[in-house]
Amino acid sequence: MTQGRFITFEGGEGTGKSTQVARLVDRLHARNLDVVQTREPGGSQGAEEIRNLALNGDAGRWSPVTETLLMFAARSDHLERTIRPALEAGRWVVCDRFADSSRAYQGAGGGTPAEFIETLDAAIVGRTQPNLTLIFDLPVEIGLERAFGRGLFETRFESKGLEFHQRLRRGFLDIADAHPERCVVIDADGDQDAVEARVWAAVEALLP
Amino acid sequence: MTQGRFITFEGGEGTGKSTQVARLVDRLHARNLDVVQTREPGGSQGAEEIRNLALNGDAGRWSPVTETLLMFAARSDHLERTIRPALEAGRWVVCDRFADSSRAYQGAGGGTPAEFIETLDAAIVGRTQPNLTLIFDLPVEIGLERAFGRGLFETRFESKGLEFHQRLRRGFLDIADAHPERCVVIDADGDQDAVEARVWAAVEALLP
Repeated sequence: MTQGRFITFEGGEGTGKSTQVARLVDRLHARNLDVVQTREPGGSQGAEEIRNLALNGDAGRWSPVTETLLMFAARSDHLERTIRPALEAGRWVVCDRFADSSRAYQGAGGGTPAEFIETLDAAIVGRTQPNLTLIFDLPVEIGLERAFGRGLFETRFESKGLEFHQRLRRGFLDIADAHPERCVVIDADGDQDAVEARVWAAVEALLP
Repeated sequence: MTQGRFITFEGGEGTGKSTQVARLVDRLHARNLDVVQTREPGGSQGAEEIRNLALNGDAGRWSPVTETLLMFAARSDHLERTIRPALEAGRWVVCDRFADSSRAYQGAGGGTPAEFIETLDAAIVGRTQPNLTLIFDLPVEIGLERAFGRGLFETRFESKGLEFHQRLRRGFLDIADAHPERCVVIDADGDQDAVEARVWAAVEALLP
């Protein structure tokens, strides 16, 4: 049995993560790897219900600290019921957003103290850290234009204003600096084939 | 303006807390005090929605750790939107369950590490500790018989078995020992007038 690998995709709005998650999963399947594709917030029955509560409603519905607790409640359920069982069975897990989104959205973007987020990460994620985190980076204006081009803002985060999204981008780049052992910054500009090639170059090192 | 006071009612199932909360609020009103009656989980719009998510479903729906995070997410919203604004306006707050229920239900009962609960309490409740906590104590068999006598088990906690409820009772008594500066154990056996007199004896010291 091969050992499972845990890959997370992170980044701001409109960076094209979700498209690339699907492309990577296809490529891993083509290598005959057993892959679980999942997402946060969500990824288990209970966590999807918390997602509905956390993401809907107006921008000020939850304070950043309350939101942090809801995200880690969802993450706790997702880890217990989806991620850890899959990794223990030797499967690969490819996850669209994970704990770094709490660091960026609720922390750098929302102002929740970093120390509180790290305490929750240590207690809830613990040793289940990703083997590889791909941080999709794009100028904020281009990302929001892409997100807007979908015809509507999907979540209340997209409606939070330019300054919030600039803090978010800076937050993700700071995470990459702080965790070079697992993070690779992906230039998310350009066509999707070019971005896919950058993702694959980072993932290849994990292949058996 | 008089200074607000924060009084919490704690205890296991069927201990008669809710009846006594209503009686105390009536007595405080009769003293011309401005009183907010509230409850946990819940007590604000967002927290009531988290309550529905946390309390419904089967007994194993959430792990104790996930449940702890949901309870503190609800508590964070409740503190920000109901409790702190009321206390800052000089009102009295009488709350049916608060953070000690997390210590007892998710901690002593469910096995969430006490250290994790205390970390969350320090970050979320902080200095908004109750001025007085009334811990309603009753032999487990009598409490569950009373709860059962209501015709149905209200929440999935009531269906968790005798041993869980015995850990819960012990947990609440340990909290009273650890926090004598704010906790009074109320013998919840006997008729409601007798219990009301015990509650009032403990509350009188807080009156202006």
